[in-house]
Amino acid sequence: MISCAGIDAEGNTISNITLNEFKKYEWKWYWIDYSSPTVEETNTLDSVFHFHPLAIEDCYTERQRPKHDSYDGYSFFVLHALDKETLGAEEICMFLGPNFVVTYHEALSSAVNHSWKRLRAEGSGLNPDDISYHIIDKMTDEYFPVLNQIEDRLNEIEESNAELTYGKLIEEVFDLRSDLLRLRRTIVPMRDLVYRVLFVERLHLITQQREYYRDIYDHLLKVTEMIESNRAMTSDMRDNFQTMASNRMNAIMMTLTIVSTIFIPLTFIAGLYGMNFVYMPELEYRYGYFIALGVMFLMAVVLLGLFKRNGWFKIFR
Amino acid sequence: MISCAGIDAEGNTISNITLNEFKKYEWKWYWIDYSSPTVEETNTLDSVFHFHPLAIEDCYTERQRPKHDSYDGYSFFVLHALDKETLGAEEICMFLGPNFVVTYHEALSSAVNHSWKRLRAEGSGLNPDDISYHIIDKMTDEYFPVLNQIEDRLNEIEESNAELTYGKLIEEVFDLRSDLLRLRRTIVPMRDLVYRVLFVERLHLITQQREYYRDIYDHLLKVTEMIESNRAMTSDMRDNFQTMASNRMNAIMMTLTIVSTIFIPLTFIAGLYGMNFVYMPELEYRYGYFIALGVMFLMAVVLLGLFKRNGWFKIFR
Amino acid sequence: MISCAGIDAEGNTISNITLNEFKKYEWKWYWIDYSSPTVEETNTLDSVFHFHPLAIEDCYTERQRPKHDSYDGYSFFVLHALDKETLGAEEICMFLGPNFVVTYHEALSSAVNHSWKRLRAEGSGLNPDDISYHIIDKMTDEYFPVLNQIEDRLNEIEESNAELTYGKLIEEVFDLRSDLLRLRRTIVPMRDLVYRVLFVERLHLITQQREYYRDIYDHLLKVTEMIESNRAMTSDMRDNFQTMASNRMNAIMMTLTIVSTIFIPLTFIAGLYGMNFVYMPELEYRYGYFIALGVMFLMAVVLLGLFKRNGWFKIFR
Amino acid sequence: MISCAGIDAEGNTISNITLNEFKKYEWKWYWIDYSSPTVEETNTLDSVFHFHPLAIEDCYTERQRPKHDSYDGYSFFVLHALDKETLGAEEICMFLGPNFVVTYHEALSSAVNHSWKRLRAEGSGLNPDDISYHIIDKMTDEYFPVLNQIEDRLNEIEESNAELTYGKLIEEVFDLRSDLLRLRRTIVPMRDLVYRVLFVERLHLITQQREYYRDIYDHLLKVTEMIESNRAMTSDMRDNFQTMASNRMNAIMMTLTIVSTIFIPLTFIAGLYGMNFVYMPELEYRYGYFIALGVMFLMAVVLLGLFKRNGWFKIFR
Amino acid sequence: MISCAGIDAEGNTISNITLNEFKKYEWKWYWIDYSSPTVEETNTLDSVFHFHPLAIEDCYTERQRPKHDSYDGYSFFVLHALDKETLGAEEICMFLGPNFVVTYHEALSSAVNHSWKRLRAEGSGLNPDDISYHIIDKMTDEYFPVLNQIEDRLNEIEESNAELTYGKLIEEVFDLRSDLLRLRRTIVPMRDLVYRVLFVERLHLITQQREYYRDIYDHLLKVTEMIESNRAMTSDMRDNFQTMASNRMNAIMMTLTIVSTIFIPLTFIAGLYGMNFVYMPELEYRYGYFIALGVMFLMAVVLLGLFKRNGWFKIFR
Ligand SMILES: [Mg+2]
Ligand SMILES: [Mg+2]
Ligand SMILES: [Mg+2]
Ligand SMILES: [Mg+2]
Ligand SMILES: [Mg+2]
Ligand SMILES: [Mg+2]
Ligand SMILES: [Mg+2]
Ligand SMILES: [Mg+2]
Ligand SMILES: [Mg+2]
Ligand SMILES: [Mg+2]
Ligand SMILES: [Mg+2]
Ligand SMILES: [Mg+2]
Ligand SMILES: [Mg+2]
Ligand SMILES: [Mg+2]
Ligand SMILES: [Mg+2]
Ligand SMILES: [Mg+2]
Ligand SMILES: [Mg+2]
Ligand SMILES: [Mg+2]
Ligand SMILES: [Mg+2]
Ligand SMILES: [Mg+2]
Ligand SMILES: [Mg+2]
Ligand SMILES: [Mg+2]
Ligand SMILES: [Mg+2]
Ligand SMILES: [Mg+2]
Ligand SMILES: [Mg+2]
Ligand SMILES: [Mg+2]
Ligand SMILES: [Mg+2]
Ligand SMILES: [Mg+2]
Ligand SMILES: [Mg+2]
Ligand SMILES: [Mg+2]
Ligand SMILES: [Mg+2]
Repeated sequence: MISCAGIDAEGNTISNITLNEFKKYEWKWYWIDYSSPTVEETNTLDSVFHFHPLAIEDCYTERQRPKHDSYDGYSFFVLHALDKETLGAEEICMFLGPNFVVTYHEALSSAVNHSWKRLRAEGSGLNPDDISYHIIDKMTDEYFPVLNQIEDRLNEIEESNAELTYGKLIEEVFDLRSDLLRLRRTIVPMRDLVYRVLFVERLHLITQQREYYRDIYDHLLKVTEMIESNRAMTSDMRDNFQTMASNRMNAIMMTLTIVSTIFIPLTFIAGLYGMNFVYMPELEYRYGYFIALGVMFLMAVVLLGLFKRNGWFKIFR
Repeated sequence: MISCAGIDAEGNTISNITLNEFKKYEWKWYWIDYSSPTVEETNTLDSVFHFHPLAIEDCYTERQRPKHDSYDGYSFFVLHALDKETLGAEEICMFLGPNFVVTYHEALSSAVNHSWKRLRAEGSGLNPDDISYHIIDKMTDEYFPVLNQIEDRLNEIEESNAELTYGKLIEEVFDLRSDLLRLRRTIVPMRDLVYRVLFVERLHLITQQREYYRDIYDHLLKVTEMIESNRAMTSDMRDNFQTMASNRMNAIMMTLTIVSTIFIPLTFIAGLYGMNFVYMPELEYRYGYFIALGVMFLMAVVLLGLFKRNGWFKIFR
Repeated sequence: MISCAGIDAEGNTISNITLNEFKKYEWKWYWIDYSSPTVEETNTLDSVFHFHPLAIEDCYTERQRPKHDSYDGYSFFVLHALDKETLGAEEICMFLGPNFVVTYHEALSSAVNHSWKRLRAEGSGLNPDDISYHIIDKMTDEYFPVLNQIEDRLNEIEESNAELTYGKLIEEVFDLRSDLLRLRRTIVPMRDLVYRVLFVERLHLITQQREYYRDIYDHLLKVTEMIESNRAMTSDMRDNFQTMASNRMNAIMMTLTIVSTIFIPLTFIAGLYGMNFVYMPELEYRYGYFIALGVMFLMAVVLLGLFKRNGWFKIFR
Repeated sequence: MISCAGIDAEGNTISNITLNEFKKYEWKWYWIDYSSPTVEETNTLDSVFHFHPLAIEDCYTERQRPKHDSYDGYSFFVLHALDKETLGAEEICMFLGPNFVVTYHEALSSAVNHSWKRLRAEGSGLNPDDISYHIIDKMTDEYFPVLNQIEDRLNEIEESNAELTYGKLIEEVFDLRSDLLRLRRTIVPMRDLVYRVLFVERLHLITQQREYYRDIYDHLLKVTEMIESNRAMTSDMRDNFQTMASNRMNAIMMTLTIVSTIFIPLTFIAGLYGMNFVYMPELEYRYGYFIALGVMFLMAVVLLGLFKRNGWFKIFR
Repeated sequence: MISCAGIDAEGNTISNITLNEFKKYEWKWYWIDYSSPTVEETNTLDSVFHFHPLAIEDCYTERQRPKHDSYDGYSFFVLHALDKETLGAEEICMFLGPNFVVTYHEALSSAVNHSWKRLRAEGSGLNPDDISYHIIDKMTDEYFPVLNQIEDRLNEIEESNAELTYGKLIEEVFDLRSDLLRLRRTIVPMRDLVYRVLFVERLHLITQQREYYRDIYDHLLKVTEMIESNRAMTSDMRDNFQTMASNRMNAIMMTLTIVSTIFIPLTFIAGLYGMNFVYMPELEYRYGYFIALGVMFLMAVVLLGLFKRNGWFKIFR
């Protein structure tokens, strides 16, 4: 669908008209929004607005990185909003000229909607640069709640890791770690884009709104630092769990080995005197049974002493 | 084989002629393609075109990195296309002058073929710079399907990792990880080449087609980011599997230890009263058997209680 | 609460007055401190001082990175003091003009208190730049004792790692490692802020106090190097513990395997001759029992010899 | 030994003469080679040629990094050839002036020998800059066969890793990994030297042979990229083996646990009815034996069912 | 203790006099050395020499990073010598003016002693810049023997790792790794200091002794490269040991599992016919015993065959 809005020559705010109606107005400036457009609608990027073919190609193909290109008379941006379901990127393309904004996106975009509402509310108080600023600012603000949620959950898990049921928890940590990787894929290129536009290319529009774009850049920096530090936190938790599992395994195997090493030889001795040979002199002894019991007891004590001397019992503490 | 094509002085498109026929024409510009040439054919790089010996050496030797060298009157490129079988690099060397392109490659190249067809179709609408652009653009586009396939497979594997048969899956993850390493070896130097040519050396031909080469560079950046993020994903999956294996091992050993620690002492006691000593007073007791059973039952209950208190059963949840 | 202090036109030190009293004076320079202000108090940032809305937004929202922004007539800083309990950041915002300082913080700040006392003590000997220097200097000095404590504890643990009770110790190492991560999150952005202000933006106020700010920067550099090197130390300790656990597990399993591999077959043989078949010729032999004992002894000796030849006993050394 | 060669004033090639004979000639340019010189011979660097004491110190001491220093009237290089036995560095020092080369090395150097032969063959067609180029070029070419051999062996090992005897293979991988580390120590500083000389210091001699030195630099870049990518390959193989070992351990322990968990309780029951108590009512039952067998069979079936439900058998697939 | 020395106006070398005697001379230049000074002695830095309070603070406080500050009329250095016992840093502070050097250190310093002796020996041939060069040069030379010793020991351990007693060896590797970390903490900031002074700040005194300071910088670069490459070597050894331990564990558990899996079922069967039920038909069979033996033998053969088919015996090779 294509929606058109803008401020006409008399300063009136016009909104939600079609592309055909749009052509009848004289505009101070206008904003055209392509939302999941059909192929025919996409073609109007070329037939009506005559944008550069490379830019149009970037609109309808996927998996473009966030970027800024300068063309004659307008700037072209590819931006990445966050798809809150998959934590992947939702592309929003934007053509920005002195008296127009054209946005193009496949999925619904809350950042675009939010700015559209602002245009209807504030009308001629805005200009195309404000529109583009509001879209990018809103897009950036939407990264925070997702990341805060991950951070809070990681802190919760870390607090509770003294418990024994960490099998489930560590799986959740890995899921969160994988989410952070997805977020990084979306957000880092956005940060780099704002950095380039702000400090390297020193885009004109932005020098007029410099401190506003620095505010966005600061937030993007903050978000990427949170991602990195949460990734580091999941690494540490993984190592922590691995060490706890290893300690626990040592304790388990020590238990098994102590019990087995003591009782297996004793059981052998018992088995020995359970044999049915006709001639086994010890069996006839008056105190044979008690001697056997005594020898077994002695063996157990000696073995326990050996284990103790080697410090095997300390691990259970 | 050497194939020649080009636009002659009258603007006619000539194509698929031999080197001898080629010499008879007067050319507006021409393209010579060496495809798995013989030694004699390779020698014509020197005898006919008088290229620099270092450039010619780079043509017939292997394992050159992608690069660009400027010589008097022409530029020399070593490019790496992707061998889809081995995921290794297929070298394509290219000499690019104001009125000629010379390409040299051992294996068949779909990027060269594609541009050759374009030359025959579009004829005098093209120039040598267009040819070189189309070859590099096609080469770059061919990286994507390979990488998308790896990414899709990794996502599939991650979705299914709750199942128990992860032995096979993790081996596949390692194979994909090794493929990514091979891809990186080929693609990163290509990206660096385009970067140098575009931003550092500011090659003349490219300043004329600047936005087209930036488009290529953007795609190469995207591909290398995909490689890195997929490598990170395989690391995480490996760690995930390692932790799951460790948890599973704990559960297995706990099972063994619980069963053994309970039954080994009981079996010893049974063995004790299976001994054939002539004088064993307990055997004569009226309730000896039942007392023995009772003691055994008590031992089992106490041990189970100890395990429970130490939280050993929680791990199975 | 809002506290006001400063030097009036006659050079008298005025302190701890309210905002209403403040308005009645003529000031050489003044310092307003907002400490956990109410919403109404926060509003005076706009209504009384007319600071930029982006700066005011940064005051009352959380999770801003340390930063410096230049506005018309004043500089704006977001600083991070250390919350000694959580090792997280406590934001202190500061507006710094030629004749005023305005500080804003939610939690009590010992760095602000310390400078406030200095102002009351030294009076007109100070100026706004001194105030800001003293706050930042104190804030930085407070990082050291926390880090020294962690470093000392790690050294203690490393010294004692020959003991067997390392289960508890390694958990403490992971806690310290997690603390270091938290510290890094707070301190690294502070270091980067001072770096930018000192070397990149070459802020005017600071060129006047250059060597003093370099001293702060040196300390921040020292602290971050200590954090990194202590993180590296915890990694090494974790790997060390992991290797020790692995060696210990080998020793445990070897013990179990030697004992089991020797006695399980012997017990089987004993069990064999404990069977109650009516016709078992060996049982009738005169020396059957002694032959059986001999065979068992021989088996044990042979197995021990095999283990020795494979070097299994060396691991216990 | 000191060998002298060069082109005399008449353009004749003189070679393999002693230092004393050398002094009698008038030279267009000359090359002096110190090969494992005695202390007296080394002293002639100072007494005859008056080189700078820091440069001379670098000649006779070991463990200098590859480097280039500019002195009055000559350049001084420390170069690292590869010792094919230890994969360590063999130092070759070189003084290069407008009309002389002086080389100094403890071990025999095939790169020096090769250039010496060229001088005898090509005579006055060469100059000191050519000599230095040929030595460095040959030295660089010698890195490739060593690295190719390692790469080929790693590929062989990776192909064969489906087999079970990976104990030996992984040890070889570690040896190769250690070799790569040694190679990196030698080659990376050489690459950095050529980079500095070529791009940073823009040495005069080299601007004349610019494309030749770029060719060397390209090869060094290629070699270091091969080292890094082979190191990454060995890491991946190590992780792969670790995961396979872990899977195998799971399968082994599962086998042991299944067998033990089923038979240990059964053996206990058998032991129970092997006791010799005088009064054991079950023993007298007509079908006691068959009931016991039945109970045992049932227990085995139930346990197998439990294992199956927990998916324990899937791991063997 | 404060020691004074220098060259007086007539060019005589005066040495080892007290601060009071020092004040009576007229100096061409002088060197004052504070060695573990008392508080009163430290105060003379301010009262006699009027150095900057920040520099004096750096003298008597600990844990300053190596650094260089320029003050009016003199440079201030904090240098780190190596404490050979702890491998930590020993601070040496140095004030360097056109006609004086003042050094300040808590511990004895062999680098200072060495230069002091040189001053007494060479007298007026030296100047303050030479003194500072000799101190820093000696300090740097002292890093090498410590590092060489670590490197040699690591090489020894790597050679001997085929032996089985690697428990002790790996602990030593971890100790050496921890030493390398300590060394890095001391040496890297020294390298960075010399780099900054040499290339960034282009300090005047040093431009006069440029090649001498480059020689120091080269050595520091060499030392830090050795540290990094030895750290990498210890990582590889740790991984190698880990893999060997894992292989060994597999072999141990396989032994246990093979023996147990074969004999536990056999022992059960033996136990079965050891039961004392009154009615057990098999016991009466003429060939019951031999049939039982046969069945047991068959079971053992079948299980061995299964293990062999699964390749379990290959791991022992
Ligand atoms: Mg798109
Ligand atoms: Mg915002
Ligand atoms: Mg906002
Ligand atoms: Mg998720
Ligand atoms: Mg999952
Ligand atoms: Mg903000
Ligand atoms: Mg080449
Ligand atoms: Mg080639
Ligand atoms: Mg393309
Ligand atoms: Mg395309
Ligand atoms: Mg493959
Ligand atoms: Mg494979
Ligand atoms: Mg594109
Ligand atoms: Mg705030
Ligand atoms: Mg301070
Ligand atoms: Mg201070
Ligand atoms: Mg904890
Ligand atoms: Mg804590
Ligand atoms: Mg200081
Ligand atoms: Mg040498
Ligand atoms: Mg070469
Ligand atoms: Mg060559
Ligand atoms: Mg070895
Ligand atoms: Mg080797
Ligand atoms: Mg790692
Ligand atoms: Mg000090
Ligand atoms: Mg030195
Ligand atoms: Mg020296
Ligand atoms: Mg230790
Ligand atoms: Mg030590
Ligand atoms: Mg030197």
